[in-house]
Amino acid sequence: MAAEKGVKLLDYWVSPFGQRCRIALAEKGIEYEHKEENLGDKSDLLLKSNPIYKKIPVLLHDGNPISESLIIVQYIDETWPGESPFLPSDPYARAQARFWADFIDKKVYECSKRVFSLKGEAQEEAKKEFIGFLKTVEAELGEKKYFGGDTLGFVDISLVPFTSWFYTYEAIAGISVEAECAKLAAWAKRCSERDSVARALQDPKKICDVVKSIFVV
Amino acid sequence: MAAEKGVKLLDYWVSPFGQRCRIALAEKGIEYEHKEENLGDKSDLLLKSNPIYKKIPVLLHDGNPISESLIIVQYIDETWPGESPFLPSDPYARAQARFWADFIDKKVYECSKRVFSLKGEAQEEAKKEFIGFLKTVEAELGEKKYFGGDTLGFVDISLVPFTSWFYTYEAIAGISVEAECAKLAAWAKRCSERDSVARALQDPKKICDVVKSIFVV
Repeated sequence: MAAEKGVKLLDYWVSPFGQRCRIALAEKGIEYEHKEENLGDKSDLLLKSNPIYKKIPVLLHDGNPISESLIIVQYIDETWPGESPFLPSDPYARAQARFWADFIDKKVYECSKRVFSLKGEAQEEAKKEFIGFLKTVEAELGEKKYFGGDTLGFVDISLVPFTSWFYTYEAIAGISVEAECAKLAAWAKRCSERDSVARALQDPKKICDVVKSIFVV
Repeated sequence: MAAEKGVKLLDYWVSPFGQRCRIALAEKGIEYEHKEENLGDKSDLLLKSNPIYKKIPVLLHDGNPISESLIIVQYIDETWPGESPFLPSDPYARAQARFWADFIDKKVYECSKRVFSLKGEAQEEAKKEFIGFLKTVEAELGEKKYFGGDTLGFVDISLVPFTSWFYTYEAIAGISVEAECAKLAAWAKRCSERDSVARALQDPKKICDVVKSIFVV
């Protein structure tokens, strides 16, 4: 493991966005200081480092703060490219990876919040939409080992934290990802066997409790 | 001007997102086929090229479609880097440029829609928030010629289409960007003197008519 002085992650254990950064740093073999934030009483360092959004995750590298998880993961990739960059070298393949990572934030995550917070008919509509988004993502995976091909890439890192929400989707909304999207479930299992992922993801039942406390009305 | 076979842009004249792509292609000196879409009756090519969002802009390069304007602009930059890449080479500076371009979409544009569509007290709140976002962006510009420094960069291209909405902000909501953010207004004028920008931006009064027809309730 490379010794990288001055790498610090402001984070919160349950955050899928923080988990992306943890996985990216672990994949690159970067040692860093992990600072767990109390989101009810944010540190001065967090408020100063991300004055615009005041949110975790923030990566500090030699004191320079970087915010927004997809931007942080790209920063990690560009700073420590190593042997298996998260983003491919071909511009078209890079654009496609960025498209799907963005889709996960704009559609998959956004819709999951509606699944959790709505009730009755509106929730049923959101559930249908959400399953559709998962199937769209699964179609993009196709027969590949990872979204990135043979190695874990940008899209994998963007999506994999949500695999520990599969239990939550089932507990709150009765959505079985395994039944609906078997290939995506197999990909999730494959990812979870990687040390970087296994260490970043958290107990699905604990995550469910937190998600319920945040989103469920 | 370089002859680039097989570059086509599916676009709609008033779209700030399409304008970003037009400016980026012009800055790189790339010849391309411009295909104006009828958004009320989208072409089969658009629906096939962007099946997820079914939206313009779409850049087709040798038949390969790329969607989402910020992803398209990065693709253009990576495919034709030239002498003045839009994104700097330093990973930290790249992360900052991505952060601000993302901020323009997530905050400035999103809030402008609320300014246009809300009424009364809610509109007053949105106006205050919007002016705050503009001032935040202006502070990032600081004393620089462009957000990218001495040359037009990724953040400039992301924001500059909205400068032809300044008239609309004033007409609909009484917000004078010149009075509130003089430096930003001066930057807008500086950008408008570039041929790439002047050709992409449209008559502010015509834009105002379209914005009113879309957003104003």
